[in-house]
Amino acid sequence: MSATDVAADFATDRAAVAGALETLMARHLRPELGAVAHAIRYSLEGEGKRLRAILLLMAYRAAGGRGDASLLGAAVEVVHAYSLVHDDLPCMDDDDMRRGRQTVHRVYGVEVATAAGMAMVPLAAVAAVEGASALGLPEATQGEVVRVLMRASGAGGMIGGQLLDLEGEGLSLDLAALERIHRCKTGALIEASTRIGALAGGASNALLDAFGTYGASLGLAFQIADDVLDVTATTDQLGKTAGKDVQFRKSTYPALLGVDGARARAGALVQEACRALEASGVLTPELERLARFVVERPS
Amino acid sequence: MSATDVAADFATDRAAVAGALETLMARHLRPELGAVAHAIRYSLEGEGKRLRAILLLMAYRAAGGRGDASLLGAAVEVVHAYSLVHDDLPCMDDDDMRRGRQTVHRVYGVEVATAAGMAMVPLAAVAAVEGASALGLPEATQGEVVRVLMRASGAGGMIGGQLLDLEGEGLSLDLAALERIHRCKTGALIEASTRIGALAGGASNALLDAFGTYGASLGLAFQIADDVLDVTATTDQLGKTAGKDVQFRKSTYPALLGVDGARARAGALVQEACRALEASGVLTPELERLARFVVERPS
Repeated sequence: MSATDVAADFATDRAAVAGALETLMARHLRPELGAVAHAIRYSLEGEGKRLRAILLLMAYRAAGGRGDASLLGAAVEVVHAYSLVHDDLPCMDDDDMRRGRQTVHRVYGVEVATAAGMAMVPLAAVAAVEGASALGLPEATQGEVVRVLMRASGAGGMIGGQLLDLEGEGLSLDLAALERIHRCKTGALIEASTRIGALAGGASNALLDAFGTYGASLGLAFQIADDVLDVTATTDQLGKTAGKDVQFRKSTYPALLGVDGARARAGALVQEACRALEASGVLTPELERLARFVVERPS
Repeated sequence: MSATDVAADFATDRAAVAGALETLMARHLRPELGAVAHAIRYSLEGEGKRLRAILLLMAYRAAGGRGDASLLGAAVEVVHAYSLVHDDLPCMDDDDMRRGRQTVHRVYGVEVATAAGMAMVPLAAVAAVEGASALGLPEATQGEVVRVLMRASGAGGMIGGQLLDLEGEGLSLDLAALERIHRCKTGALIEASTRIGALAGGASNALLDAFGTYGASLGLAFQIADDVLDVTATTDQLGKTAGKDVQFRKSTYPALLGVDGARARAGALVQEACRALEASGVLTPELERLARFVVERPS
């Protein structure tokens, strides 16, 4: 099955998440908020894969959830979009293009883009609160959903990983150090997505752990695939500037393992992810297909 | 009653909040998180007034709350401390001193300070979730506590206000524009503090509105007092650099109304704040004393 088929396959979920993002923005980004609101809207309207939200929705269904969890999907996408807005800033990766469009700071300026990013974490928290409440989850689960998302967004997750990443530029990191960065920077939010979906779907603790492993392994596989695409794909294919890792002298999986070695490692992680769910008896065809998409995607 | 007496008066609440911050950091800022965790800890350990937390705790008690809401107090202090870390950055106010100590970026560098600030919003959300859960609040109230805090921290509150403030530098703003900035930048979080306290304490909607007015008026009064102190106090008294507003050509209340006029406006706002609570029959002596302290404080 090609990546295009997979995209079509998940079109319903992507549309539901787009709708939930629209609802969220209409509710909380009133036009009188000015430039910050416009910049946040711009960053959320890009043609993203919505991979994290789709993972959340699939974990939700696989764990037995039958409601509409799209607002929770929107919450993880807001955190993800925030990380992209800040990653693209001149003080970080200094990128002009993202998802085939100009980056937020190119359109709105650095100050507005910075502020927009900072306003997106509280917006994500609000989305998580409202999404958990809309599903009528048990009280303890509602709090846990917000907690898992926010922990993944903080010092022990994405932010910590971004800083490690920045500090590592120009250094030769070994595989263990690189994996540590990526498990935080990319892995934490992807793991949080599957965990939140499973939590909201009413998963047992054992099942939660299985979805946690699935998400964590896929998160790392996703980042390895990203590293590979940075050297093998064109800027047009990626919708963002290719070849940035070499330019910034970043340690990457292809640099350490070669392109084939990196692909093999990503493939092994996908197997690991699927095995965790299989052992718990919840590996659906869509969860398996999405796991493969993570490493076989064209951009 | 002098400001020193007031500080002594609220020593018990300040100690409780310090304890709650310690618990929160021990739980979520493990040393292996490295520099970001150290920087967050440094920013939270300063000798702050803890005004927002104290307001929250007093509103909580005045609304009938009888539990330990100190972790909710810690949550608002984390958001406040985050705003100070980012305000002090070279790209913002570029300040070296805060609360009589070096600012976070002077000690840990700009990159770590920036990341630390960004990690503090999710940390505050986690504190709010855990604080609301520890009090055993009704399900809808737990979510609302987190929502109020995060909305005050986002585009419609603090972040929006910071951006307006930055955009306003060097422009001559009129009183209405200045008030709009300060109601967002400073007022939103102070209003959120009193609202969250009242919410957690079980206030009716009418009482919530009264506490909202109290907090919003005090928030604006606080900022006017800040503007006045910037021109009348010394760097030693403030524990941060005095005279920055003139240096940055900021529109301020003393510049628009004169020092006496600004003081009169702040005093009127304090009266407005107290009247809102009095009309609801919940103006305690400590709420009145704290309202006065907001404009009479020495730093």
